[in-house]
Amino acid sequence: MSFVGKAILSLGLGASLVAGTAIVVAADDAGQALLSRAQALFKPLPADAATPERPITPELVELGQALFFEPRVSTDGKVSCAFCHNPSFYGTDALPQSAGNRGRLVPRNAPTVFNTALQFVQHYGGNRADVEEQALKALTAALAYGNKDFAEAETRLRALPGYRPLFEKAFPGQAEPVTVENWSKAIGAYERVLLTPAPFDRYLEGDTSALSDQARRGLDKFITTGCAACHGGVTVGGQMYQKFGITQDYWLATGSQENALLKGRDKGRFHDTQDEADSFIFKVPQLRNVAVTPPYFHDGSVADLGDAVRVMAKVQLGRDLEKGDVEDIVAFLHSLTGEVPEVFARAPNLPAAAYK
Amino acid sequence: MSFVGKAILSLGLGASLVAGTAIVVAADDAGQALLSRAQALFKPLPADAATPERPITPELVELGQALFFEPRVSTDGKVSCAFCHNPSFYGTDALPQSAGNRGRLVPRNAPTVFNTALQFVQHYGGNRADVEEQALKALTAALAYGNKDFAEAETRLRALPGYRPLFEKAFPGQAEPVTVENWSKAIGAYERVLLTPAPFDRYLEGDTSALSDQARRGLDKFITTGCAACHGGVTVGGQMYQKFGITQDYWLATGSQENALLKGRDKGRFHDTQDEADSFIFKVPQLRNVAVTPPYFHDGSVADLGDAVRVMAKVQLGRDLEKGDVEDIVAFLHSLTGEVPEVFARAPNLPAAAYK
Repeated sequence: MSFVGKAILSLGLGASLVAGTAIVVAADDAGQALLSRAQALFKPLPADAATPERPITPELVELGQALFFEPRVSTDGKVSCAFCHNPSFYGTDALPQSAGNRGRLVPRNAPTVFNTALQFVQHYGGNRADVEEQALKALTAALAYGNKDFAEAETRLRALPGYRPLFEKAFPGQAEPVTVENWSKAIGAYERVLLTPAPFDRYLEGDTSALSDQARRGLDKFITTGCAACHGGVTVGGQMYQKFGITQDYWLATGSQENALLKGRDKGRFHDTQDEADSFIFKVPQLRNVAVTPPYFHDGSVADLGDAVRVMAKVQLGRDLEKGDVEDIVAFLHSLTGEVPEVFARAPNLPAAAYK
Repeated sequence: MSFVGKAILSLGLGASLVAGTAIVVAADDAGQALLSRAQALFKPLPADAATPERPITPELVELGQALFFEPRVSTDGKVSCAFCHNPSFYGTDALPQSAGNRGRLVPRNAPTVFNTALQFVQHYGGNRADVEEQALKALTAALAYGNKDFAEAETRLRALPGYRPLFEKAFPGQAEPVTVENWSKAIGAYERVLLTPAPFDRYLEGDTSALSDQARRGLDKFITTGCAACHGGVTVGGQMYQKFGITQDYWLATGSQENALLKGRDKGRFHDTQDEADSFIFKVPQLRNVAVTPPYFHDGSVADLGDAVRVMAKVQLGRDLEKGDVEDIVAFLHSLTGEVPEVFARAPNLPAAAYK
């Protein structure tokens, strides 16, 4: 090869490389800008949801895991936390509205228990401050554990002698550790480790390849459409209240005659505060694992994730999304699906004793 | 050392050895005799419960595992096989009598699903030939899956599109593999691998150290008292029918006023055959995992295993067992406890779809 040949070859290669680099840089700029916007709106999951007031120990988690699956504290012997937060359905029951004690209908949909400890309040109406209060009050809720008071729940709990050593280990030095308060603290500690890191977390940590091109387009549209204004933070939602149906009645948008007939039945926070200003105000639900936890909304009225996206854009933001936009956003939402934690997927062996 | 010294030493050692050997041989003789009697009465578990007519493949088992935990084929969206055969309770629900569809009371106790495929018939009344028939007919049982007919069950099953690929793999070459018959075959295949080898199996295979001294005493008493006459075979029961209350009314022996009042309600096989000769005739239940699956009897009327042993000896054999005999037999029964199979303890992720 002549010197000229070599020079041309070099030039050719050089030009290609420059052009290639320019394209990569442009893509990187756009990609980096999207990542930066995302990092400002969302946060990757922490290792657990412990707080100084709500500490976690292995002993608490072990006890909490058993109690989460324990139905013998309920008045029908069937209701446990796992009764509605089923390991086979990513911590939901796949029902539009849950079936509670003796199979009676619960008026709202059971959200996933995963990552819920990181939400700012619990329940769609926000009437529970944290997962510990949620668990504790479930003991005397008629449609949940069904006990008439905490004393009845405690009697049922103490009738299961196999738990005493576990309570003693989890709450050392207490004269009587087998209490409903400790029951709820142990379950809370367990729920605080039920976090599900997902591809979106790896993305937020800087690995842009963790999301497909379509998922990144969807993320962009999720932000620019306005979804992220409410569905933000570490749980992609679950950090504020909002009216359901800002620009339009959501029952009309879902097109469900059945739901139209039910209109006004569930007024959200109003039921807790009795303040008309709270009518149809609900906690914005988190979206982690949303793709694997249908059906959607507080009443489970929408079965398809694309439909849920479309309805939300319409009634919350006044936007009619194109089919492709919906598909891209759905692709992004799939990146919020994590793995079922091993401590949840594997059923604990509960102390043998007959229900009384 | 002199020759005499050596000779004495040899003699001493020799005498000791002979004496020692004699004792060991005597113990071995008794131990071997017990083992031989046990081997004539019982059999260790096979690797699985497949038969030529009921084959097992990995694809069948995988599908069957999912379907076993799948509640969306039931009319209340809650009943699955696992609803009463819970992984946390060794495949039972720990209730005296089960709660079925919409929480309604089922008149009998839910036995463990483990090893049940090896029993000679299914159900306390023996009205199901095998686990496949048991599963199939549960689909239209009002207190189980609750469907009005198989067509309704099949419609529910086909409304879960995520199962179609699993059915196609498990039943290759079938034009329409998603049928209730195939549903029951897959669940049956899964149940046929839910076997729980226990220390007693190792004993039966010749390792007498697998049972404690007390458990071996208990085994001896279990045989000599007469328990093994009915509770024999591979499942230590589950191989014949027998009248419950041969020498005495069992309701009187349990001392339960409540049960005395209910007397005559459950007449066992009579309900299936309408033959008075079948009154109070029940399948002899298997005893594998009995120590970890209280409460006992077809009506769950006895919570304590020792009480169950005492009552059985009294009303079936006319024997009043001493406290120590009961304790020894209970120690033996503990040797029938196996491990929860991994394919049962670990919840399958079920195809995401809302219940309709």
